[in-house]
Amino acid sequence: MNLTEHTITIRVRYPEVDAMGYLHHSRFLQYFELGRIELLRASGHNYAELEREGVCFVVARVQVNYKSPARYDEELTLLTRITRQTAVRIDHAYELRRQDVLVAEGSTTIASVNRQGQVIPIPDRLGKPS
Amino acid sequence: MNLTEHTITIRVRYPEVDAMGYLHHSRFLQYFELGRIELLRASGHNYAELEREGVCFVVARVQVNYKSPARYDEELTLLTRITRQTAVRIDHAYELRRQDVLVAEGSTTIASVNRQGQVIPIPDRLGKPS
Amino acid sequence: MNLTEHTITIRVRYPEVDAMGYLHHSRFLQYFELGRIELLRASGHNYAELEREGVCFVVARVQVNYKSPARYDEELTLLTRITRQTAVRIDHAYELRRQDVLVAEGSTTIASVNRQGQVIPIPDRLGKPS
Amino acid sequence: MNLTEHTITIRVRYPEVDAMGYLHHSRFLQYFELGRIELLRASGHNYAELEREGVCFVVARVQVNYKSPARYDEELTLLTRITRQTAVRIDHAYELRRQDVLVAEGSTTIASVNRQGQVIPIPDRLGKPS
Repeated sequence: MNLTEHTITIRVRYPEVDAMGYLHHSRFLQYFELGRIELLRASGHNYAELEREGVCFVVARVQVNYKSPARYDEELTLLTRITRQTAVRIDHAYELRRQDVLVAEGSTTIASVNRQGQVIPIPDRLGKPS
Repeated sequence: MNLTEHTITIRVRYPEVDAMGYLHHSRFLQYFELGRIELLRASGHNYAELEREGVCFVVARVQVNYKSPARYDEELTLLTRITRQTAVRIDHAYELRRQDVLVAEGSTTIASVNRQGQVIPIPDRLGKPS
Repeated sequence: MNLTEHTITIRVRYPEVDAMGYLHHSRFLQYFELGRIELLRASGHNYAELEREGVCFVVARVQVNYKSPARYDEELTLLTRITRQTAVRIDHAYELRRQDVLVAEGSTTIASVNRQGQVIPIPDRLGKPS
Repeated sequence: MNLTEHTITIRVRYPEVDAMGYLHHSRFLQYFELGRIELLRASGHNYAELEREGVCFVVARVQVNYKSPARYDEELTLLTRITRQTAVRIDHAYELRRQDVLVAEGSTTIASVNRQGQVIPIPDRLGKPS
């Protein structure tokens, strides 16, 4: 069954923080990507397999609002939700928290492309989320 | 004299591309940061010095539209522009190109904070851009 | 009780692989660092706390032999062992495996320094490993 | 003409330093890789092209001695030298300096492989260094 949302925990790694001791703002996009991949996995799919089949998800748009810094070794929770899905695109929304504190929220649009970068339909088995 | 825009060239490094051979979408934020820092330097300022004085610029918001993939070893040009500046915040816009092709465009808001993360005025010498 | 060895599992993340689809060779050092930190944690210590107290572990030497590539999404196991400990230095050895296959083996020497980078004794509570 | 050594300058980027404000020890391997690639380029070759032809250089062994920390925004010079070359392998040595101060020295062995990871001869045009 294809899920529409999933939560993971991520511990901030040492090389991910910057000289201020804060998780570097570029790393949030890597965490969001982990969130998407684990949402797929929780639905029984595997992104590595999709790529081997020639289906690649490329990021077309991102937007992040940073609310509170995250520091080395903190354990964060990331909620990833599908907010919209078309034949070739998926929109996700993200909430990254340290316990009750909102660290960041964001959204992305990903597009399904082949190895040549041409837009192709999202495989049927990823379905419409239910 | 404080500049409002500046262009740099960046060559895509090997560990910055992903398994598709594309510059990873999170890396664009690191390129934009380079653009801001070099815009500062071209205006006669130095971000490392600012941090030693206790003035840190943290990213409060980012937004990126990805238009065309960039690949390993390609030489890109990045135009960084200040679009708005208040007492404590600066908005930048970015255009990343491979020759005439637009690779991505984006925008950020950065805020001036002290080492404790409290918002503080941007130092006078960074002035209003002219 | 201070342990002399500890094993963790690490799943290879997408931005950690390069254009060949292989875990980039520089990332192994980041995995070894995770191994050291989790070995500390398994012994009841916390590296973030040590740093707040002014005790920093800097890497003085590394050596890695790469045996077999690791790919995106593979789950690896990392065995981290203390092989020697003096008043101010710790030597570790590492074995990174994908099931039975040896992916890499390595060793490091870390030194205990204060925030000014001067060598200081390793805190007593980290003791001689037993 | 194939060169045996080449020097480049590298400015330390913000996301490359850690919470201590030091260039992270894993980043040195990425700098060494830049050194190898620019040594190739200075000899009239292009690593991206080699990969498109199916010739990939994988790292089989690294060794680094860290002598002095490097900090954000410092401009470093990296000397890369070929110390030995066989039909399928090249050994390099590296010296990373901040002006006269030795920041690190290291060495690597790279092997020439095809896309399936099988060892293949280094293309003739890369020749024996002269």
